[in-house]
Amino acid sequence: MNPIFYINGAFVPEQEARLSVNDIALLRGYGIFDFFKAVNGVPIFIEDHLDRFEASAAKMHLAIAESREQLREAILTLIKRNPAPLLGIKIVLTGGLSPDGYTPTTPNLLMIAKPFQFADANKPMKLMLVEHQRELADIKTTNYLLPIWLLPQMKAAKADDYLYHKDGYITESSRSNIFIIKDEQLITSNQGILFGITRKHILKMAAKHFEVIERPVSLEEALSTDEVFTTGSTKRVIGIGQIDNHLIGNGQTGKATKYLQTLFAEYEKMYL
Amino acid sequence: MNPIFYINGAFVPEQEARLSVNDIALLRGYGIFDFFKAVNGVPIFIEDHLDRFEASAAKMHLAIAESREQLREAILTLIKRNPAPLLGIKIVLTGGLSPDGYTPTTPNLLMIAKPFQFADANKPMKLMLVEHQRELADIKTTNYLLPIWLLPQMKAAKADDYLYHKDGYITESSRSNIFIIKDEQLITSNQGILFGITRKHILKMAAKHFEVIERPVSLEEALSTDEVFTTGSTKRVIGIGQIDNHLIGNGQTGKATKYLQTLFAEYEKMYL
Repeated sequence: MNPIFYINGAFVPEQEARLSVNDIALLRGYGIFDFFKAVNGVPIFIEDHLDRFEASAAKMHLAIAESREQLREAILTLIKRNPAPLLGIKIVLTGGLSPDGYTPTTPNLLMIAKPFQFADANKPMKLMLVEHQRELADIKTTNYLLPIWLLPQMKAAKADDYLYHKDGYITESSRSNIFIIKDEQLITSNQGILFGITRKHILKMAAKHFEVIERPVSLEEALSTDEVFTTGSTKRVIGIGQIDNHLIGNGQTGKATKYLQTLFAEYEKMYL
Repeated sequence: MNPIFYINGAFVPEQEARLSVNDIALLRGYGIFDFFKAVNGVPIFIEDHLDRFEASAAKMHLAIAESREQLREAILTLIKRNPAPLLGIKIVLTGGLSPDGYTPTTPNLLMIAKPFQFADANKPMKLMLVEHQRELADIKTTNYLLPIWLLPQMKAAKADDYLYHKDGYITESSRSNIFIIKDEQLITSNQGILFGITRKHILKMAAKHFEVIERPVSLEEALSTDEVFTTGSTKRVIGIGQIDNHLIGNGQTGKATKYLQTLFAEYEKMYL
């Protein structure tokens, strides 16, 4: 199947989806995006993702020419043009073609659709500790400089992703949020992070089953807690078995995490 | 005049210079570049810039397919194809078209040429203080997220650029290095900065006229010193008259800075 992408109102084959090299998303790393999945043709939590996309654009001083209705229509057309049971959709807003190569102008809007597979929910992940605070953390920018630069170190450490921490507190992973479970409490950071859509729905859903708390989480606490898990659109809920050399519990997906995995799979079905 | 750009061995008109949206320089901000000027067709300090470009690529785990000789040849052709008395040349190496949208692959090499004008050497600049440390500071990455995001604040403050500082020490400006002059000593930071090519030549040239010292410079020291100036390829040497509300000297370009401006204009001529 030949993927069809979207650029500024046009649907084009992947190999024709090109942008001017004058765009400051390319030259200066100035752009935002959002990412969500479509399951059997249905985009999951699409209004949440569009809320966040519009908020990211506004915070970045970038104007989206398209209305919410136009964005939604374009996404639905994109999904129809790329039939797949599981489709990952990335919408990107660039800083635009800048005459001085620096100052943002009229953004370009892209949408990329690619089939994906869920991560194995039964396989716990290993995280590598990285002292880092994402710049403009509450904006979903395209800046992945450090996590990509660290990939060789991550692979050497046989880790699957990072756990960012700063000044003794953990924040998030490179592309997903982090929760800890401690004495039947579900705790997740609310500072220095990107507020994930899966995170939001986990908080809402879990409140019926656990005491749910949003507050700074210390690194010490995270390393000595009962369970740790991560949440994201294509990960949903995945247990963390190890952080650097510290085993979390017995290194397997914890009992409460497994319960949340089951609950969330059911919860998502309500949106299909 | 229609600018001619270079992409992976081809010389194309600016409007045809396009790259796939799958390039992670666009999607993930993963790329490096270098920038230098050609004066009357002669690229200034080109070997220094190519040294740094190759070093940036190596540190970013990106392979340059072109040899030094091929890079030099391409640059000279680019200059011929874009006749201008003062030409700014940007060479960019991207993370490449990544199947997973994340992992670096075969880089794309771009070269962009645009006429420019020198900044007015007699007009001192005003800097706005920003607490910030560039990620991977010694690599010339395309990450300009924060300085571009701050542009509206910078304009509101009637500033021309930023002075980055962290933990009580100054580092650099957004696109140029910073020197202070204190009791006939020329001092510039050597930590957390990108090592500028103009900086390098100023250090070499000034050593005959001043005591030249590379060491961390505290913010307090910078605000209370005799003179401050900034160096870069298109700025050469420009005095700093004000940092936030602190006047430097009497707010005008200092005497030693003026002397260095004259010396450096002469020094550069040796490379023509």
